[in-house]
Amino acid sequence: MARMERYTITIPEDLLARYDSLIQSQGYTNRSEAIRDLVRDALIEEEWADASEKVAATVTLVYDHHFSELAHRLTDLQHHHAGLVVVSTHIHLDNDNCLEVIILRGRCGEVRALAEKMIALRGVKHGKVVHTTEGSRIG
Amino acid sequence: MARMERYTITIPEDLLARYDSLIQSQGYTNRSEAIRDLVRDALIEEEWADASEKVAATVTLVYDHHFSELAHRLTDLQHHHAGLVVVSTHIHLDNDNCLEVIILRGRCGEVRALAEKMIALRGVKHGKVVHTTEGSRIG
Amino acid sequence: MARMERYTITIPEDLLARYDSLIQSQGYTNRSEAIRDLVRDALIEEEWADASEKVAATVTLVYDHHFSELAHRLTDLQHHHAGLVVVSTHIHLDNDNCLEVIILRGRCGEVRALAEKMIALRGVKHGKVVHTTEGSRIG
Amino acid sequence: MARMERYTITIPEDLLARYDSLIQSQGYTNRSEAIRDLVRDALIEEEWADASEKVAATVTLVYDHHFSELAHRLTDLQHHHAGLVVVSTHIHLDNDNCLEVIILRGRCGEVRALAEKMIALRGVKHGKVVHTTEGSRIG
Repeated sequence: MARMERYTITIPEDLLARYDSLIQSQGYTNRSEAIRDLVRDALIEEEWADASEKVAATVTLVYDHHFSELAHRLTDLQHHHAGLVVVSTHIHLDNDNCLEVIILRGRCGEVRALAEKMIALRGVKHGKVVHTTEGSRIG
Repeated sequence: MARMERYTITIPEDLLARYDSLIQSQGYTNRSEAIRDLVRDALIEEEWADASEKVAATVTLVYDHHFSELAHRLTDLQHHHAGLVVVSTHIHLDNDNCLEVIILRGRCGEVRALAEKMIALRGVKHGKVVHTTEGSRIG
Repeated sequence: MARMERYTITIPEDLLARYDSLIQSQGYTNRSEAIRDLVRDALIEEEWADASEKVAATVTLVYDHHFSELAHRLTDLQHHHAGLVVVSTHIHLDNDNCLEVIILRGRCGEVRALAEKMIALRGVKHGKVVHTTEGSRIG
Repeated sequence: MARMERYTITIPEDLLARYDSLIQSQGYTNRSEAIRDLVRDALIEEEWADASEKVAATVTLVYDHHFSELAHRLTDLQHHHAGLVVVSTHIHLDNDNCLEVIILRGRCGEVRALAEKMIALRGVKHGKVVHTTEGSRIG
């Protein structure tokens, strides 16, 4: 566990009261935790600005598995980048539609490029990347 | 597979040329597919504006598993909302850090609330929700 | 000026060091100020979730003034919502293109609807809304 | 006015029907216009990825004008970057709060840095940048 520091911020009384009521509605039980989350969010955006930084990401895809060749191409793409793909989880939404989540790790530039390629595959109805972190650099 | 329609748009020549070069760099091999993806993105945002709409979502969490009680609370939270949680996938980033992806389905309002609660748990370093779709309404 | 409160957060040492270097690169000279900005950002998003809340907004439009009837329709739209439009500033980007910024105030729902209508006008090449605040509620 | 091209996309019937109803609610009277706007949005994001590209931007600031030295520092900052600042529009929200919109033009990297500096000034309660375009490259 990381070494903790105590830091005092000055903040308008009203602002703090309104923030407390917001984070309570979101389920936070602890104000420091909510503020640390804002800080970490800002840092993760920064990590992703550097193409050589080591990062983690998840790609969420919704697609129609009847779509000719799509499942095949998706598997191919993942195998050709086996160093980046950690695991892929697949559920059946209905007779036609699948949802798949792929966890990726690697250099930011390569992770981003692979994610774009998967989303661009013909037959993928919706695709989104979450840029996240390997965790060690954000305490 | 959905019934297809052919629709003709008028678009400035230069705009189309620049768009072609952008989507090619993203890995699209087909211009219609890229435009359909833009259209679907806009529609999914709309789905999520209505709290009673049925949706799918993924939640990506990075956390330190040494953090007191966190893994326990996360499991508890998922069990108390078993109707919303489809599956949860977990990987070990290093000695301390885990990455977990939870796939959720249900009414938009409930899915959103559960996702916020998981992200707000003390010890979660980073959390992001992807709002996606059950697929059948977006062709 | 608002009554200030002093509040102590506990935060991992490394996280704080990395945050300090990020905000310094952004031009902040004061860490409390950077954190207050994160807090205010979160609150303003919340204000905009309630359609009846009083808000302020700016709409940025880029358009070709040769486009038939556009300037006329844009002026018309603003006059029909004179209670929402505070001021409009216009510059000439080149022979064809204009950039216009419109400052709006009013109930969130009405402000949002008027902004969408302006952006949807035929001939508007790019339009974006900034959701901001009347300022008094965020200290 | 740009040379127009006609381009036919194939798109699922249902998807198109749902999109039509969405854009109608946003005030679009023309489907091609809505799709061109999606395409332009994607291209403008791309323009801003290259620090040397010529761009336009607006910065929206809300601040308390009683805040010691802020108005002075803001004016100073704008004068030191006179080549980037086109015009600044200022309204009084109430006794304390001002809203100011600054229109900027120049190399993307410099515009971004100046915008960040203004937002980081102590006393600025809320600041947001809109990344837009000089218009000529997006038809």
